[in-house]
Amino acid sequence: MVTVAVVGAGYWGPNLARNIALSDMTQLTWICDLDLDRAARVGRHFGEAKVTNDLSEILDDRSVDGVAIATPVATHAAIAQACLKAGKHVLIEKPLAASVEEGAALVELAESQGLNLMTDHTFCYTAVVGRIRDLVRSGDIGDLLYYDSVRVNLGLVQSDIDVFWDLAPHDLSILDFVLPETVRPVSVSARGADPLGVGLDCIGHLTIALSNGALAHAHLNWLSPTKIRTTIVGGSKRMLMWDDLRPAQRLSVFDAGVEIDDFDAISRHEALVSYRIGDMVAPSLPEGEALKNVVEEFAESIAERRIPLTDGAAGLRVLEVLAAADRSRASDGQAIALDQIYPAEAR
Amino acid sequence: MVTVAVVGAGYWGPNLARNIALSDMTQLTWICDLDLDRAARVGRHFGEAKVTNDLSEILDDRSVDGVAIATPVATHAAIAQACLKAGKHVLIEKPLAASVEEGAALVELAESQGLNLMTDHTFCYTAVVGRIRDLVRSGDIGDLLYYDSVRVNLGLVQSDIDVFWDLAPHDLSILDFVLPETVRPVSVSARGADPLGVGLDCIGHLTIALSNGALAHAHLNWLSPTKIRTTIVGGSKRMLMWDDLRPAQRLSVFDAGVEIDDFDAISRHEALVSYRIGDMVAPSLPEGEALKNVVEEFAESIAERRIPLTDGAAGLRVLEVLAAADRSRASDGQAIALDQIYPAEAR
Amino acid sequence: MVTVAVVGAGYWGPNLARNIALSDMTQLTWICDLDLDRAARVGRHFGEAKVTNDLSEILDDRSVDGVAIATPVATHAAIAQACLKAGKHVLIEKPLAASVEEGAALVELAESQGLNLMTDHTFCYTAVVGRIRDLVRSGDIGDLLYYDSVRVNLGLVQSDIDVFWDLAPHDLSILDFVLPETVRPVSVSARGADPLGVGLDCIGHLTIALSNGALAHAHLNWLSPTKIRTTIVGGSKRMLMWDDLRPAQRLSVFDAGVEIDDFDAISRHEALVSYRIGDMVAPSLPEGEALKNVVEEFAESIAERRIPLTDGAAGLRVLEVLAAADRSRASDGQAIALDQIYPAEAR
Amino acid sequence: MVTVAVVGAGYWGPNLARNIALSDMTQLTWICDLDLDRAARVGRHFGEAKVTNDLSEILDDRSVDGVAIATPVATHAAIAQACLKAGKHVLIEKPLAASVEEGAALVELAESQGLNLMTDHTFCYTAVVGRIRDLVRSGDIGDLLYYDSVRVNLGLVQSDIDVFWDLAPHDLSILDFVLPETVRPVSVSARGADPLGVGLDCIGHLTIALSNGALAHAHLNWLSPTKIRTTIVGGSKRMLMWDDLRPAQRLSVFDAGVEIDDFDAISRHEALVSYRIGDMVAPSLPEGEALKNVVEEFAESIAERRIPLTDGAAGLRVLEVLAAADRSRASDGQAIALDQIYPAEAR
Repeated sequence: MVTVAVVGAGYWGPNLARNIALSDMTQLTWICDLDLDRAARVGRHFGEAKVTNDLSEILDDRSVDGVAIATPVATHAAIAQACLKAGKHVLIEKPLAASVEEGAALVELAESQGLNLMTDHTFCYTAVVGRIRDLVRSGDIGDLLYYDSVRVNLGLVQSDIDVFWDLAPHDLSILDFVLPETVRPVSVSARGADPLGVGLDCIGHLTIALSNGALAHAHLNWLSPTKIRTTIVGGSKRMLMWDDLRPAQRLSVFDAGVEIDDFDAISRHEALVSYRIGDMVAPSLPEGEALKNVVEEFAESIAERRIPLTDGAAGLRVLEVLAAADRSRASDGQAIALDQIYPAEAR
Repeated sequence: MVTVAVVGAGYWGPNLARNIALSDMTQLTWICDLDLDRAARVGRHFGEAKVTNDLSEILDDRSVDGVAIATPVATHAAIAQACLKAGKHVLIEKPLAASVEEGAALVELAESQGLNLMTDHTFCYTAVVGRIRDLVRSGDIGDLLYYDSVRVNLGLVQSDIDVFWDLAPHDLSILDFVLPETVRPVSVSARGADPLGVGLDCIGHLTIALSNGALAHAHLNWLSPTKIRTTIVGGSKRMLMWDDLRPAQRLSVFDAGVEIDDFDAISRHEALVSYRIGDMVAPSLPEGEALKNVVEEFAESIAERRIPLTDGAAGLRVLEVLAAADRSRASDGQAIALDQIYPAEAR
Repeated sequence: MVTVAVVGAGYWGPNLARNIALSDMTQLTWICDLDLDRAARVGRHFGEAKVTNDLSEILDDRSVDGVAIATPVATHAAIAQACLKAGKHVLIEKPLAASVEEGAALVELAESQGLNLMTDHTFCYTAVVGRIRDLVRSGDIGDLLYYDSVRVNLGLVQSDIDVFWDLAPHDLSILDFVLPETVRPVSVSARGADPLGVGLDCIGHLTIALSNGALAHAHLNWLSPTKIRTTIVGGSKRMLMWDDLRPAQRLSVFDAGVEIDDFDAISRHEALVSYRIGDMVAPSLPEGEALKNVVEEFAESIAERRIPLTDGAAGLRVLEVLAAADRSRASDGQAIALDQIYPAEAR
Repeated sequence: MVTVAVVGAGYWGPNLARNIALSDMTQLTWICDLDLDRAARVGRHFGEAKVTNDLSEILDDRSVDGVAIATPVATHAAIAQACLKAGKHVLIEKPLAASVEEGAALVELAESQGLNLMTDHTFCYTAVVGRIRDLVRSGDIGDLLYYDSVRVNLGLVQSDIDVFWDLAPHDLSILDFVLPETVRPVSVSARGADPLGVGLDCIGHLTIALSNGALAHAHLNWLSPTKIRTTIVGGSKRMLMWDDLRPAQRLSVFDAGVEIDDFDAISRHEALVSYRIGDMVAPSLPEGEALKNVVEEFAESIAERRIPLTDGAAGLRVLEVLAAADRSRASDGQAIALDQIYPAEAR
């Protein structure tokens, strides 16, 4: 049983608390929020947890193994640093930190302390993303050719972070998770827009060149009356389409039905009037709350003294792409090489 | 009755010939192809048309009012020029020409000759694009905020043109057609990829900044076993979703359901768990072949001595964006201002 | 605050208990199950509730206002009778009882005791069914012409009740709820099948003639690897399509777009090649757990001393149709008039 | 080359004529209609065909091999009889005739004359129905358990035939075509409704018990502003879902994912919250006009002196079910055994 404190009782914290409380592998010990009432409202549902607005109470509690941090991004680094220094394992809501520098410092500190630093890349713990990762990494889809995500949220203009920092961490953490180990982002170009004049980008396009010649792209958007969450992952043998708003058929696997060498053999005309070339398979996927799996991976990786599936380094790689996108936006969309962001040897 | 000759009997030419032959407003007089057999095979279905492999026969035929050109792009300019000089109105398959310079020369020549030069932007003549144009231009969607197209074709790697020149003309001609008159493309950034090493880009991302602060984007892709043709057009009041592969519900109009001023009033939480904010309307749209409308607009605009809906200038604007995209690709995605492509006063 | 005891801790009981415990309008006081362990497992999550395997403890508890019964159908009547006699209001899982006679006796007893008897017709408390009821009863759809439901469950062959008694109560309670008050079922014909030889019908078709000349039908089916839950409700002006497995667009309202008088005016040919005649509207519907609304209606109707929305009489009307269906099945599908089932004056 | 005359130039005749004219296996020789102008309008597109309003001209023409009949149902028997007596093979639009007696007489006459009598069950010649037949007859779906079709047409109230005779021949011919040879309809129950008071049934439900214990059903409906054409075919191993209005995914094959013996092993609870049990495959199907295949089967079966795929006997079996449905409707839905309709030895 891993004992866990939750810091931050806003939107995500209560979900973390509930999953920690209900799991057989974890025990919820503290809920901490600067707003003590808010912490208490969350704690009421979970009798066993103590409530505080003072982080040091948690740091001083020798019985606490790990801390789950769900506070505003700007505060991640300071809180996580304090926890790591106090010998606590850390699970941190995405994005890992507010900058590459902060993130890198956390990764380094965790390593030197021999503690687990895990980034809560929740989507990576869904059945559908797990399946996509398997299909990509096993070579089932052939060589990866492209990745395209349209992520349109009923999005609320936020005052602190723009649409890139709000939504892209989802796509970037998924991309990082499913990419074969030999394929890495090379350069990033980005353009954003603020057509309503709210002061920060509400629409963004992020294009990432990958080391194997493939191209990844994400359309990030807050300004819509309806959600869209569609990701396509193309390979030389199969193409995956993931529609997260269609629970009865989240994942569709399109079979090319032809060898790539024969591709020219199909007449252009025939292809122009067809809908598709091969069969499509929609695999059966279990439903279930991804955050439960996050919490259990945190507990298991601590118990087994191993690196969690989405560690601090994964969170740092996401920050590097975000930083490159920031710099590209400032340069009219020019591609920024990722090795300009952070020295390769440090990664 | 406008008499029309068709030049080019490959993929598109026979469709043009059929529509010209069947319309009450046009008469098919010639079919011309360098390959006389191919021309004859097409002509066989349309008894009234003569067949030739010599363009000059058409140019010399005083009874021919207009020429519809469906030859490879590289030959557009020379053939169209000859036709215009011979006093024929010209309908030309998209893209208008192989370069901005060629296109601009054609536009100028047509103007000086007092002849109609029409670009066959076929999609602009579908019921769904007509409705989108109405909804955007009437202000029904509010202010235009974004435009995003995913156009994945069962695409056949072609030897002469890359995926930008093959597919983007569809999106660019539609964008040009539906944009309010006061809103124009300002700059273009593009990145392409050739992950199979075929020698030209098979995947492309094109991002266009618009003069009102909105952002347009097109994902162009040949490398898929299934087609995707989804376009979303976002406004401050409504969002349009067009799925061209879903004939029973091509167009969905999502109502914001809230005033933009109240947007903050919705709690972030509530929006995060909802699918959408307001009602959706899927208007009834007539089915019908767009090319029939193209042919009739060509005939009508000649008969009424007016500029056709998609004239040479529209075709030229598409070429300008393509040229900017070429230049941006060569500059690692850096945005290229459209006024660098072609002097504004010339347009 | 209405105090409620839950009897039955199998599949549905814990859901009832949770909603009763979490609502501000109700207080969960007892959980009763013959299997005390099972009751205790449920009770553990809701500290305030006592646990028992002896119904009389609840009956004797003067502080208990109402009892929610979620036991096997065969036991409904006896338990509900005991509760009503002890002066408790009763909420009872559908179907109300195992026979019309049992159901009628319960309705009569509740009335004579001046207590509320409510049937838990859960679907009637979803936003989508509420909207359908509004659209039908307001005359928005015009005159009701047909109602057709396909309800295919991942169904587990059950040993106690067949597919009619398992699934039809959903459709029959919804039909009862949305029908205009002037329209009532008149006769029922039914055919079932047991193609796997399990001993009771696993597939059923139920056809109901309505008093206004309309026809209702339900296809009930356990034998499928995928769920289907599609209901169409046709009127002279609009047709409603409800697909409950498509959360982003549960309800589609198809507009006839033509007056019924003009119906002949459309050429048959044109209609044969079209997908639809008028616009379609998919209204925005709030998500939310229907059972919460059930529990609150139970509490509210008690507090306000009024008949609940789905009272015992509604549950009895469902039983009458089920009884007629049983008799029709036994008569090779011959229609059974509902006034043969139960004397009209008694209803 | 089989020479064919078309009789009837209304809605379906011109489609037959076009396919006969364009096929390499047939030659269109005559178009006959009582309305000579209508015949001429059709003939104009097909230069080689002669036009007449006198059937005897065709009967007397020794060069005519076969006659395709697309006249009102009431006239089928007389025209077909004349053609068969004149030694012509006959292709006849569904339904084969206006009664079982008429149909049986035609079948007998064709047999005694040694001529082919083919029923134009067009849907049987689509790729999707062919695939369904293969999946059912090969045992791929396991034992057939149920068949359910919802066929809602933008339907025009017709004066001559009701919704059963208009739409059910589609479903009945498909059912007849896909059923394993050992499985046959046993009894039929039907109920219809005419809620608008137009004088004949506009809505119908047809339930057919099959000889293996399975149940088939069709919902037939004219009164809707939108089309629905969904058919599900359930087997013990797989379930097929055919949505004919979704061209990009007409057929979905749901895999049970479990042996039927293990069915009980899945907890009821788990099944209640899941969408489906196993994978789904949507096979790639070629597009193409079914009527082309009809015409070619007619020609091929004549040339090869073999029974066509959908012969007169198939047409007759459809009539028998329609007759049983008529009788059941007249008997308040009571099931009518098919061997009451027509003596088994005659079939």
